[in-house]
Amino acid sequence: MQSSTSDSLPGDRTPMQTSLVAALDIGGTKIAGALVDGEGALLLRSRRPTPAREDADTVMAAVAEVLADLAASPLWPAVTAVGIGSAGPVDRSVGTVSPVNIPAWRGFPLVSRVSEAAGGLPVELVGDGVAVTAAEHWRGAARGHRNALCMVVSTGVGGGLVLDGRLHTGPTGNAGHIGHISVDLDGDACPCGARGCVERIASGPNIARRAAENGWRPGPGSDASAAAVAAAAREGDPAAVASFERAAQALAAGIAATATLVEIDIAVVGGGVAGAGEVLFAPLRRALHRYATLSFVRGLTVAPARTGTDAGLIGAASAALTAPRPHRAPV
Amino acid sequence: MQSSTSDSLPGDRTPMQTSLVAALDIGGTKIAGALVDGEGALLLRSRRPTPAREDADTVMAAVAEVLADLAASPLWPAVTAVGIGSAGPVDRSVGTVSPVNIPAWRGFPLVSRVSEAAGGLPVELVGDGVAVTAAEHWRGAARGHRNALCMVVSTGVGGGLVLDGRLHTGPTGNAGHIGHISVDLDGDACPCGARGCVERIASGPNIARRAAENGWRPGPGSDASAAAVAAAAREGDPAAVASFERAAQALAAGIAATATLVEIDIAVVGGGVAGAGEVLFAPLRRALHRYATLSFVRGLTVAPARTGTDAGLIGAASAALTAPRPHRAPV
Repeated sequence: MQSSTSDSLPGDRTPMQTSLVAALDIGGTKIAGALVDGEGALLLRSRRPTPAREDADTVMAAVAEVLADLAASPLWPAVTAVGIGSAGPVDRSVGTVSPVNIPAWRGFPLVSRVSEAAGGLPVELVGDGVAVTAAEHWRGAARGHRNALCMVVSTGVGGGLVLDGRLHTGPTGNAGHIGHISVDLDGDACPCGARGCVERIASGPNIARRAAENGWRPGPGSDASAAAVAAAAREGDPAAVASFERAAQALAAGIAATATLVEIDIAVVGGGVAGAGEVLFAPLRRALHRYATLSFVRGLTVAPARTGTDAGLIGAASAALTAPRPHRAPV
Repeated sequence: MQSSTSDSLPGDRTPMQTSLVAALDIGGTKIAGALVDGEGALLLRSRRPTPAREDADTVMAAVAEVLADLAASPLWPAVTAVGIGSAGPVDRSVGTVSPVNIPAWRGFPLVSRVSEAAGGLPVELVGDGVAVTAAEHWRGAARGHRNALCMVVSTGVGGGLVLDGRLHTGPTGNAGHIGHISVDLDGDACPCGARGCVERIASGPNIARRAAENGWRPGPGSDASAAAVAAAAREGDPAAVASFERAAQALAAGIAATATLVEIDIAVVGGGVAGAGEVLFAPLRRALHRYATLSFVRGLTVAPARTGTDAGLIGAASAALTAPRPHRAPV
């Protein structure tokens, strides 16, 4: 029961007919899986908590359980490939992952282990930022755009690129890592080792930290999260407003840099911090106007992401559906 | 006398046999032209000063004279296309150029005018930074690299990208504009309208300005150029050394940002400022180590450019040889 895969983007709406893919979204908190059809519909789901502090084989066993749930479905024989979006860094050139939040996995051969657990199916691996980008390009706000940056602004800041209508993964599957470009070369030290990275200024924890440093305090019954800062900003708290404006400035400098380097026409911003809505997007659009100055980037627009919490699964499926597979024979 | 063009990169050494291209390198000072073969050899040259302050048709007449010199050659019937590398901004999507240093050309329809002057041959237009990148990938320091950034550090700072083994022009032909990404979001205002751009810190005039501001003075018989600052730095002048170190830091932040965004394995640096040699490259390598921190960019290397003053012509030829031409029938 084998149908051929296609190199064309699912966004091009090539009919996929009977072919399905299995998608895995692997993070430090949960391992999610789904069977996904050629239209991006999730037909069957499974998930397990990530035993992130356990040894490498215990984490892999949780992945195998998710796959076993999917393989028990009568739809499984139609599955032609497995797509994985994983917390990074990943290295698709050798099929390994080293997620920061899963310490036992360092250079872990996830591709071969998943292929083995999935009966020898071809496996496509990308970083989680690339997966979200694939999802937004296939089914979300970047649909129809030939050149796009998609970002996740949350505890960290990740991203991915669509160039010339195709997902740009880079050789290792990590391209689009906008959270760790420096927009402030003399700025605060970032845990990555550099200074003034976009993430160091614009992530949720950094938005909350900066607001607190400038005098903002959570109200009764509120926490000290970026969402609480956003609520305060909506009510006009100056430190809260200023913290979001600074985050927006860093995001704008990073987005403008990306557009100036590769030419994109849309930047899609998702993740928990994007949930702040206009508290983030209004200053972001203003700041983008100041940093995206050259003629060929002035038309750049910014839009909120649309694919939500299933983005990782949808994107992993898209990566599997669109991957060229020169080195792997059909099963 | 028509031979087919190929979509494969000349760097792949596809035999081009009898086919030649005409190359044009258009800048604010000179208009250079050449007939170039499939190996990148310049078989015939012509050049005119750019009448940069004259009206649009007078500038175009100088381009037409260069083309007429080339067309007078017995080799001309073997020419299958014209490649243009032009001072930017350019817009290859509509075939126009608006070079900052040629004020009369604003949205000037260079592609159609050159095609007309060249008997209807297909014309490929790219920005000058993209042209230099094509040259370095074909015949220079980026040869054999599938993912590269090439830069020109001179009066301005320009660049271009090779991604997945192909020149990445972007829809308008301006991709790789590393000189105008901000690495210092609160930094000095740049003429482009943004702040803290790489060019604002690392161009030759800015290196000279900063050295002078910090007390460096040209010696007797010397000028106040970046080359003079480089000579002083070689002799240990602290202000001269510091100015090159600051330029290197900005270049490193920009190169690291590019690698983190698109995954490159080499950055090639040319242009007059790169002539400073180790005065620039030694601090550049050190600074790159501080900014290129993620696992997938740590292997990034930096190398001096090799194609020299013919880079623009060689790159324009490469762009013409490798351009897909879905919309233009062979002549």
